[in-house]
Amino acid sequence: MTSTTKVVPDIVIGRLPLYLRALTYLAEESRELTSSQELSDRLGISPAQIRKDLSHFGEFGKQGTGYNILFLSQQLQRILHLAEEWEVVLVGAGDLGHALVHYGGFEGRGFRIAVVFDRDPQKIGKKLGESEIFDVEAMPTIIKDMGIKVSIIAVPASDAHTVADTLIESGVRAILNYAPITLSVPPHVQVQYIDPVIHLQRMTYYLA
Amino acid sequence: MTSTTKVVPDIVIGRLPLYLRALTYLAEESRELTSSQELSDRLGISPAQIRKDLSHFGEFGKQGTGYNILFLSQQLQRILHLAEEWEVVLVGAGDLGHALVHYGGFEGRGFRIAVVFDRDPQKIGKKLGESEIFDVEAMPTIIKDMGIKVSIIAVPASDAHTVADTLIESGVRAILNYAPITLSVPPHVQVQYIDPVIHLQRMTYYLA
Repeated sequence: MTSTTKVVPDIVIGRLPLYLRALTYLAEESRELTSSQELSDRLGISPAQIRKDLSHFGEFGKQGTGYNILFLSQQLQRILHLAEEWEVVLVGAGDLGHALVHYGGFEGRGFRIAVVFDRDPQKIGKKLGESEIFDVEAMPTIIKDMGIKVSIIAVPASDAHTVADTLIESGVRAILNYAPITLSVPPHVQVQYIDPVIHLQRMTYYLA
Repeated sequence: MTSTTKVVPDIVIGRLPLYLRALTYLAEESRELTSSQELSDRLGISPAQIRKDLSHFGEFGKQGTGYNILFLSQQLQRILHLAEEWEVVLVGAGDLGHALVHYGGFEGRGFRIAVVFDRDPQKIGKKLGESEIFDVEAMPTIIKDMGIKVSIIAVPASDAHTVADTLIESGVRAILNYAPITLSVPPHVQVQYIDPVIHLQRMTYYLA
C-alpha cells in the first residue's frame, strides 16, 4: 500500500478532534506557534504519539519551530471534513434535546442542529432552536430531502433502536447516541456513544 | 518497581469501563464465558491489547477457555472502586440536569445522584429525583457533611469554573464537566469532559 491509500487507525482519528480542540484554545489565547510537548502537557498524550499521529497526514511542523496553530487547525479541519458545516438531525425534544439545542459548544466547530423530531403531539409543531419540532413519522421524507448525514439520538433507551433504524433508512451515516443502549448498525454507519458512567468509572479508579 | 506499585497508564484505566460495559451486556445475554476476541469484536480494540490491559491487574482468563464474565466483571468493579455506590453531587438543575436525573444509565453501575444544586430561586426547594434542589451557596456545607467525592457540572460555561472551584474546596475529587470549557484543577482532582462535538468530528472523518 502507498501512503495515500493507507488506512489510518481509528484510534488515531479519535485523537484528532482532541488536538483540534487544544489548538482552538491556544488560538483563543492569541498564540501563533505550539509544540508537541505543549499539546502533550494539555492533553496527557505523549509528544511522540502526537507527532506520530499527525505524521499520518503529512508534515505539519518544523523541527525546532513547532507547529503553526492556525495552519495545523485548518489542516485538521480539512482532514476531519469540517471545512463546511454539517447539518445535524436531533431526535428527541425532551430535557436532553433542549439542553443540546441550547448547548454553546457546536458553534464554529462544524455542526448545526438543523431539524428536530419528537413523537409527542404536545411538542410537535413547537419551535426548538432554529427548527420546528416535526413528527418522527416525517423523518424519512424530511431527512432525505435535506440530505442530512449526521444525527443525535436523545430519546429513551426503549425507543433508541427504532429511531436509529429509521435514521439509517433515511440516509444518515453518523449517529451520536445518548441512550444507554448499544446499537447494531451496518458497517457504513458510524456510531458514537455519550455515556457519563464510563467517564465517572474512569475517575473513581483514582479515588481510594 | 514491583508489580504491586507499578503505575498503570491512564489510557489503560480508560478502557476498563468499556470492558466492564461489554461484559455487562454479555451477562444480560445470559452468557457465562467470553474471550478477548469476542470483546475485541464488540469494542474495536485488538485482542492483544485487551489481554495486555487486563494483565496489569492479574490473571483473569485461562488459555483456551477464556474469561468468566461474572468473575471478570466483579474484578473490574473492584479495581475501579465500584463495589459500593458513589453518591454524586449534580450542579445545575436546568434541562441537562433534569435529563441526567432521569437518565436510566447510572443504576447498578456504581453511581447515584444524591444531591442537586442550582442558583435559581425558582428552582431552589423543589424536588428533582431523590433530592431537593439546594442553593449553590450551601454547597460547601452540604457536600462536606455528606462526604461526597464525585460530581457532575451541568451549568452554563460562564459559571462552570466557579462551580468547579467550590466543588474542589468542598472536598470533591472527581468532576464530570458538561460545560464546553476546560477546567484548571489541582493534581489530586480528576476531570472528565462530555463534549459531543469531539464524537461528531471523529465520525465525519469517515463521511466523504
